[in-house]
Amino acid sequence: MTFSQRLAQAARMVDARLAQTLDSAAAGGAPSRLVAAMRHATLGEAKRLRPFLVLECAGLFGVASEAALPTAVALECVHCYSLVHDDLPAMDNDDLRRGKPTVHRAFDEWTAILTGDGLLTLTFALLAAPQTHADSAVRAELVAGLAEAAGAGGMVGGQCLDLEADKLGTPARPLEADVERLQAMKTGALIRFACEAGAILGRAAPDERRALIVYGERLGAAFQIADDLLDTHGDAAVMGKAARKDAGKATLLAVLGQPAAKARLTVLEAEALATLAPFGAKAETLREAAKFVAQREK
Amino acid sequence: MTFSQRLAQAARMVDARLAQTLDSAAAGGAPSRLVAAMRHATLGEAKRLRPFLVLECAGLFGVASEAALPTAVALECVHCYSLVHDDLPAMDNDDLRRGKPTVHRAFDEWTAILTGDGLLTLTFALLAAPQTHADSAVRAELVAGLAEAAGAGGMVGGQCLDLEADKLGTPARPLEADVERLQAMKTGALIRFACEAGAILGRAAPDERRALIVYGERLGAAFQIADDLLDTHGDAAVMGKAARKDAGKATLLAVLGQPAAKARLTVLEAEALATLAPFGAKAETLREAAKFVAQREK
Repeated sequence: MTFSQRLAQAARMVDARLAQTLDSAAAGGAPSRLVAAMRHATLGEAKRLRPFLVLECAGLFGVASEAALPTAVALECVHCYSLVHDDLPAMDNDDLRRGKPTVHRAFDEWTAILTGDGLLTLTFALLAAPQTHADSAVRAELVAGLAEAAGAGGMVGGQCLDLEADKLGTPARPLEADVERLQAMKTGALIRFACEAGAILGRAAPDERRALIVYGERLGAAFQIADDLLDTHGDAAVMGKAARKDAGKATLLAVLGQPAAKARLTVLEAEALATLAPFGAKAETLREAAKFVAQREK
Repeated sequence: MTFSQRLAQAARMVDARLAQTLDSAAAGGAPSRLVAAMRHATLGEAKRLRPFLVLECAGLFGVASEAALPTAVALECVHCYSLVHDDLPAMDNDDLRRGKPTVHRAFDEWTAILTGDGLLTLTFALLAAPQTHADSAVRAELVAGLAEAAGAGGMVGGQCLDLEADKLGTPARPLEADVERLQAMKTGALIRFACEAGAILGRAAPDERRALIVYGERLGAAFQIADDLLDTHGDAAVMGKAARKDAGKATLLAVLGQPAAKARLTVLEAEALATLAPFGAKAETLREAAKFVAQREK
């Protein structure tokens, strides 16, 4: 099976379980408008990179995809919530996401805010549920780890720094270190935790878990630079979201310039591959994932 | 100690721990603007009813206040997040909360959205942290229970039903049962879970836990009717938020009329008291809490 086929297969598994999860929410008394908006925000064409990383990293330790699936779906829910809120008029004010109208365009603004809130809450419901893992210590660790990655010191904090720079104006040209911190929080923390979650599910040894955290960090940083490159010369029809929306935002591409940003991407890809060495042939798909992420817009 | 003194004492404990928790968030790398807004949203004059219920219900089973405090603080964080988002321009568009400008007035809209997101995420970080309870099974149960109470089938769903009625227009005069369902989700679920959380922390027997769930349900329903009564004849200066903001909203007061609503309040108070009978003298403060909630605006 090629890497693309493997990614697509994981996406199909995630989509099917997401749909089931939302059916359960509807059966559990969630209002139909809210469930419809949560479906709009989560189902449809998407790469499902974060769930894929959960499944592949857990697989290194012999965890079957089916067993890692609730955690994988939780990672997609928290990612989708962040997209719905980031797209809001008060934030990035985007009309298009994954080739469809954003939730506040398809419904309205209050429904979009509640959709994000509902998905974030669902994320933790999924992680704490007994089917996620038989051992409650593993479930509590997943909840604590995700809350840290997604919270004020992680993803939410990164979005705050990004909007501060964008809306309140940065006093001077941002420093490389500031942009790196922002990106590590805004997109890096969740990608890194997707990899760590696989290690938690697989009860990895500390050095194996550490290796996957480093892999996730490098992958997340590479993902962001590739995304910035895509934004500058991409096509909205291909990307499924507006292009050139980063104009004026503090990106590493803007700080480093294109040649240095591309060189950085190459280094990050090499580092991501190097950290997988101890896993040998088992990690071949994760190696291909690093190449996929780094090279998708070269 | 009088009931008011006991409530005030709990509030001081909760305030002090909330302040510490936000100091930790700042130390953990959360941006200063976000931490300032999270402080604005949580600290200051407030009754702290939900944390008080956690502490008192846990106390029935011999759990010391100090041991129940992380859970109590988590309940206040999730409540504060809901207030910040509900006050947003796209939702209730309120300027005043607890006698202060709402977060989107004191800061701006995007900061308010992220503040709510950060507080909701912090709620789950607190519940999953080892200091909340030594047993991870208890922590996972608290996370799962809160996620259900606060999610699309609970608080977020109730807010959705409320805004649907308000903004999209109800086709006809709402039925009593519909309003009861809405209120049970929007405000009831969290008050009920505050009581249940005390039982979970105290490893209560199933019948004791059931009694506290029923108590919390009646208390939550009584709280909402008392709040509706307060809204119609209250004074913004006393309430710390706008009065008469419910005009046109689907309240039980509007459906039943004032005499029947007051009679319902009396019944709910009696039912809340009756369900505490098995706990004997230990539950005296919870009895006073029921009277306090039901009678605060008679």
